Amino acid sequence: MRYEVEMKFPVAELAAIEGRLAELGATISARQTEVDVYFAHPARDFARTDEALRVRRKGRANFLTYKGPKVDATTKTRHEIDLPLPPEEETAEQWMGLLAALGFTVAGEVRKSRRKAHVAWQGRRVEVSLDEVDRLGTFVELELVVDSAEAEAAKTCLASLAEHLKLERSERRSYLELVLERAGRD
Amino acid sequence: MRYEVEMKFPVAELAAIEGRLAELGATISARQTEVDVYFAHPARDFARTDEALRVRRKGRANFLTYKGPKVDATTKTRHEIDLPLPPEEETAEQWMGLLAALGFTVAGEVRKSRRKAHVAWQGRRVEVSLDEVDRLGTFVELELVVDSAEAEAAKTCLASLAEHLKLERSERRSYLELVLERAGRD
Repeated sequence: MRYEVEMKFPVAELAAIEGRLAELGATISARQTEVDVYFAHPARDFARTDEALRVRRKGRANFLTYKGPKVDATTKTRHEIDLPLPPEEETAEQWMGLLAALGFTVAGEVRKSRRKAHVAWQGRRVEVSLDEVDRLGTFVELELVVDSAEAEAAKTCLASLAEHLKLERSERRSYLELVLERAGRD
Repeated sequence: MRYEVEMKFPVAELAAIEGRLAELGATISARQTEVDVYFAHPARDFARTDEALRVRRKGRANFLTYKGPKVDATTKTRHEIDLPLPPEEETAEQWMGLLAALGFTVAGEVRKSRRKAHVAWQGRRVEVSLDEVDRLGTFVELELVVDSAEAEAAKTCLASLAEHLKLERSERRSYLELVLERAGRD
C-alpha cells in the first residue's frame, strides 16, 4: 500500500526558503493554480474519520483523490488513491455531478497558487511545494510517497530536511480544515 | 438532463433479428466482451431506490456509470451519467479500490458478449444491442439517449421499431437484477 508522508509549515514569507532551496540545487517550477473541491460522504463524517475526497483542477487537468485517515501523530502520513480524470473543466463538472447523484455534498473549496521543487535529501527525492493559499497565507509542504515499510524512514528524512530549511511549527490540519475553521470564525 | 430510453427483450435466438436488421440496412459490429461490476451504496439500498453504479470494462476501455431511477413504467428510461476512465484493467482495479475505500461494496457482476447495430427509424438513430449474457441467455436491447423533453417521442419510436422487429415481452429488470434473482434460485 502506498502512503503519502507529508509535513506542512506556515511561513511568514517564501523568499528565504527559495534561497535555501536554490543552495540545494533545486529548480522551482512556474506557478500553477490548483482548485480543490472537497466532498462530504453520504454516510460517514469525514471530519471525524479523518478521510477526504476531492476533485482537483490543475490547469486543464483533473484528478479525483481519496485520502485515508492519518496514521501518525507528527506527520500527515496517509493512504492515498489519486486517479487522473480526463481533462477540461466540463469533465470536472460532470464528475462533480456524478458525486452529487451518489449523495456526496460539497464540504468546501481550497484555491491556491503552487510552485514545486524537488530536493535530493538523504538519498530520496523530496517534493517541496511553495503554496499561497487563498484566505490562509503562505505554507511550505514536504512530501514523499512510499510503501508502508518505508514510512518511518521517510518521516525521518522529511524532519531532517525541514530542520535544514529552518521550517518550524508543523501544521497537521489540512487546508480544508483551516479554511473551514476560518469560515467558522468570520 | 440526458435520459437513456431503453427497451430490452429476451429472444430465443438472434438469427431472425439479424436478418430483419440487415433488411433495414444495418451493419452489425464485431463481438465485444463487456464485464460490468455493480456496486452497492454505503448508505442507500440501490435495489430499493432503483439506482445503479457500475464499472464497465469493454476491451481495454473502462467506464464509470451511474444510472438514476427508472422514470417510466414500460421502458427503462433513466437519468444516466456515463464517464470514461483511463484505459487498462489495472486502472479499473484502482477505481474499484477507490470505491471500496468510500464504502461501496460489490453487488454483482454481469458478463456478456455484445454486438451492436444502428438503425434509422422514424428520423432517429436507434442503437440496437445483440447480447449473449452469461447464465441468462440472449437479449435484444433498443436504446436512444435524448433530452428529457424528447423522452416520450423516443419511447414511441422504440416501441414502433420493436414491433417491426417482432420483439415481444419487454423485460424491465436489469441484467444485474436477473443475475441476482437467478443466483437466489440456484
